[in-house]
Amino acid sequence: MSAADLMAVLVAKYLRYDFDNPDDLRNDKLVFSKGHASTLLYAIFRAAGAIDDEELLTYRQHGSRLEGHPTPVIPWVDVATGSLGQGLPIGVGMALGAKYLDKAPTRVWVLHGDSEMAEGSVWEAYEHAAHYELDNLIAVLDVNRLGQRGETMVGWNLDVYKARAEAFGWHAIEVDGHDVEAIDGAYAEAISTAGRPTVVIAKTIKGSGVSAVADKPGFHGKALDDADAAIAELGGVRNLHIDVAKPEGPAPELPAADGSLELPTWEVGDEVATRLAYGEALKAVGAADGRVVGLDGEVSNSTYAEIFAKAFPERYFEMFIAEQQLVAAAVGLQTRGWKPFASTFAAFFSRAYDFIRMAAISRANLRLAGSHAGVSIGEDGPSQMALEDMAALRAVDSSAVLHPCDANQTAQLVAQMAEREGISYLRTLRPATPVLYGADEDFPIGGSKVPRSSDDDEVAIVAAGITVHEALKAADALAAEGVNARVIDAYSVKPIDVETLRDAAEATGGRVVTVEDHWPEGGLGEAVLIAFADAEERPRVKVLAVTGMPHSGKPAELLAAAGIDADHIAQAARELVGAAVRA
Amino acid sequence: MSAADLMAVLVAKYLRYDFDNPDDLRNDKLVFSKGHASTLLYAIFRAAGAIDDEELLTYRQHGSRLEGHPTPVIPWVDVATGSLGQGLPIGVGMALGAKYLDKAPTRVWVLHGDSEMAEGSVWEAYEHAAHYELDNLIAVLDVNRLGQRGETMVGWNLDVYKARAEAFGWHAIEVDGHDVEAIDGAYAEAISTAGRPTVVIAKTIKGSGVSAVADKPGFHGKALDDADAAIAELGGVRNLHIDVAKPEGPAPELPAADGSLELPTWEVGDEVATRLAYGEALKAVGAADGRVVGLDGEVSNSTYAEIFAKAFPERYFEMFIAEQQLVAAAVGLQTRGWKPFASTFAAFFSRAYDFIRMAAISRANLRLAGSHAGVSIGEDGPSQMALEDMAALRAVDSSAVLHPCDANQTAQLVAQMAEREGISYLRTLRPATPVLYGADEDFPIGGSKVPRSSDDDEVAIVAAGITVHEALKAADALAAEGVNARVIDAYSVKPIDVETLRDAAEATGGRVVTVEDHWPEGGLGEAVLIAFADAEERPRVKVLAVTGMPHSGKPAELLAAAGIDADHIAQAARELVGAAVRA
Repeated sequence: MSAADLMAVLVAKYLRYDFDNPDDLRNDKLVFSKGHASTLLYAIFRAAGAIDDEELLTYRQHGSRLEGHPTPVIPWVDVATGSLGQGLPIGVGMALGAKYLDKAPTRVWVLHGDSEMAEGSVWEAYEHAAHYELDNLIAVLDVNRLGQRGETMVGWNLDVYKARAEAFGWHAIEVDGHDVEAIDGAYAEAISTAGRPTVVIAKTIKGSGVSAVADKPGFHGKALDDADAAIAELGGVRNLHIDVAKPEGPAPELPAADGSLELPTWEVGDEVATRLAYGEALKAVGAADGRVVGLDGEVSNSTYAEIFAKAFPERYFEMFIAEQQLVAAAVGLQTRGWKPFASTFAAFFSRAYDFIRMAAISRANLRLAGSHAGVSIGEDGPSQMALEDMAALRAVDSSAVLHPCDANQTAQLVAQMAEREGISYLRTLRPATPVLYGADEDFPIGGSKVPRSSDDDEVAIVAAGITVHEALKAADALAAEGVNARVIDAYSVKPIDVETLRDAAEATGGRVVTVEDHWPEGGLGEAVLIAFADAEERPRVKVLAVTGMPHSGKPAELLAAAGIDADHIAQAARELVGAAVRA
Repeated sequence: MSAADLMAVLVAKYLRYDFDNPDDLRNDKLVFSKGHASTLLYAIFRAAGAIDDEELLTYRQHGSRLEGHPTPVIPWVDVATGSLGQGLPIGVGMALGAKYLDKAPTRVWVLHGDSEMAEGSVWEAYEHAAHYELDNLIAVLDVNRLGQRGETMVGWNLDVYKARAEAFGWHAIEVDGHDVEAIDGAYAEAISTAGRPTVVIAKTIKGSGVSAVADKPGFHGKALDDADAAIAELGGVRNLHIDVAKPEGPAPELPAADGSLELPTWEVGDEVATRLAYGEALKAVGAADGRVVGLDGEVSNSTYAEIFAKAFPERYFEMFIAEQQLVAAAVGLQTRGWKPFASTFAAFFSRAYDFIRMAAISRANLRLAGSHAGVSIGEDGPSQMALEDMAALRAVDSSAVLHPCDANQTAQLVAQMAEREGISYLRTLRPATPVLYGADEDFPIGGSKVPRSSDDDEVAIVAAGITVHEALKAADALAAEGVNARVIDAYSVKPIDVETLRDAAEATGGRVVTVEDHWPEGGLGEAVLIAFADAEERPRVKVLAVTGMPHSGKPAELLAAAGIDADHIAQAARELVGAAVRA
């Protein structure tokens, strides 16, 4: 109710949206960053004729698309909200796409609440929106002063919000959020402001219009005690219908893949970091598909996103050290059909984990590339080492977790990521590693490679990334002792190649070592275990993973200290081969 | 080199620190939020006589405590840095503790870099520091304008930082960061500023003093090509020694536990939400131990942290909707011996995952309580449901992951969390659940309960939280069919009770169902699987977990739709009992 007047003026006069064609690129975007105001959003859909009363009354019922917080199950909702402080950074991505890429006349309207102004991600968005001069982005700030539990830090001091917004480079307008003439004037000013985004800072009353709850704490997310009295006080039952204006002008078209994809290739035996292969492959994929967009968090000279950035500066956005905005911008861009790849150190995607979680609920097609995985980074120490990223990214609906060990493999996986729906995560390495596979080999998502096998393998070693190379060294050592070890390169950690794993367990009499540069929880080892959980034949599995907090050191020293180098692998294999193994 | 003059003036004249007694509460705190400036920090330690040249030369070598980024392996370092934008929010926690709790004369000095000003967490810290009037907090902002890859969004426009800081309620001073007189004046002004924090915004030159690199891009994190020339240009080899002033005045003492702990109790059969039990238990623990501090992210009426807040308002800090600051404040508080419990919805700890990851590297003793776990929350929808939290928190070094199903169990776990070192995570439920256990039973971390068993159990069901109640219903249904099922309540998901699991597998002929209100990856099911991975006898395990994106609905509808209700459990058990089960 606090934002009802603000939204009424917006949809009646300013919003340009074709409810029959929600995918029209010319449409404005309306993002309810305060997703708990879903009743207002659904009331707008009802007023616009998009849904009827009957559907409106299914609110929050199982099977209804009108969920407690909006999700893209509804065709007129682009992204899920409900974790606060995400709508504006995602709006930045939408506005970047419209202003710089597809050049549609889209305006992005974000309704955000005052409670969520405490989220740092909001200020990442304010800074980036101004930096990129997003005058097609308009935030409507509903300052009803009351959060779920009590008053915000700022209360109704609208001047504070204005000073902050201006210090971050925005145009800011203060307004009485229940004065429709004033709101109209503010929106008119906002859409005529060039070169910077505008925020309409509206003083509002929570529960406005219903005296039983207006400006009173304790009614957050609660139904009214006396709905009939409230309706009467609001002027009785009305059947408002609003004709929302449709967008006009020529419809922009997105580029299409031109079929010319030529991935970079490397010779077997070359020493190439998979992060470098990522950069080269992204450039190649971007050359063949004009929808590919690059974003990076101020480490493009480490992730090698800079190779793409130099080739296609018009399709690259620097997101600086703001990983929440980095991921949110990618989410926003993909709502317009672009194919963003976002990169930073793998460890720093943990900064944006809530955004990745919400991106899954948004049914987003998101490509993430995290470099500098694990202890193999060496001297920089544990703060820079991703050791939990596979656990975190596996536990995301729709995700793929890809961890290549060589350059040709990396390149093919990048190409597949561009075509894949859902959330795809690529984990790359800092150090150079030898190229194991020819460029003509296939590396499908969901597959694996078996770089070492024989007819009489006694143990299988399942590895990914840096540990594939350690596993091969271990296999050499074991072979010298007369023990044949099969090595499985599980570059697709999710989905994992169950069939190859089961074949290996069968062939080796149920002896499996897994080894990963990651904590033991939630990574490769557990991915292998769950693949066998319900199988009739279940191997004995020694899970080698990083135990104990790593320190600085040389990669080889750290792999040894973590218990995941060739020596430790060989020893685990010896123990299995010596043991009675069948359960 | 950009911050060397700033730090030289600080340690020579302003810092009060006893290197022989780093745990003295009166000491100032010096946090290098730009952890990549570790060489400068270690040079300070050398100048202060805390380390010698020989140790300094072990920098970044394996076995040295002088890691690439500072960690608390060094006694004079309180928290690990290296993930940018964390030092200031942690400093807020330190300053809160000093100003409001132990009332030590500590000043908290945070050196932060300009690149990290793009991190939203920094602005969470600016807002909270001003809100809590932390005049014992002084930020030193090293504006060298160059990030790893290029210039920041703000460059050398110091006025922009000043306007932002002032809009967030800080006192701000601009200064030439290489003019020691000016720096001196700025610090003097900072320490005499009352009622609000101060930031000294210093214009600096990256690589200052060495013309080969000064203000040039491309030298981030790189060794100098010609170190001898650089030393000569800097004035030759000197052996500076600085006598750092020691703190003075009476040493504050922290309260101790008084042995009076009386936990709340509930009767078997009562219906109580575990989140409510958390709030009641925290109040009891707080009554018995004056070091317990409560923090919450503006949802204390949902997490029930409000029960503690009302009982001990002087030991409660509202952190508003800013989960990064919430966790960071807890990290800061525990560096002073306080025992913070931080709570929010379990889903929203994903917002602070990088802070939790870094807290483990900081060897922090952190207590986190996440409510509203899983689909059992009901109508609010997936944005509010934690479904990845167990995977994320298991993959944290030193962590315990606790997921109680009843109120008495919850209370005892809260009491143990207060005493436990490392990172402890409690996962609580929204709906009320029946109390299963008497208040006199024990629930050790690392243990489990077996609420249902017999001498001829044919299948074991491993559950936690809401699914324990579903498992018991399933066991009833199975019993009616003549199948005895053992139910294991694995309230300690990490560490898990391996012995009880193995006994159950043995007793049931290797038939195990696991069931969790969480994605299949990284949660209870995989925790059970890895417990058996290398065992000689390995059960067949059916892992029931949430598959498919949940929607709004009633808890029972959602448990059924997710495939984790009593019916699904019973069916999985039937399939196992019907199957030939031994591998």
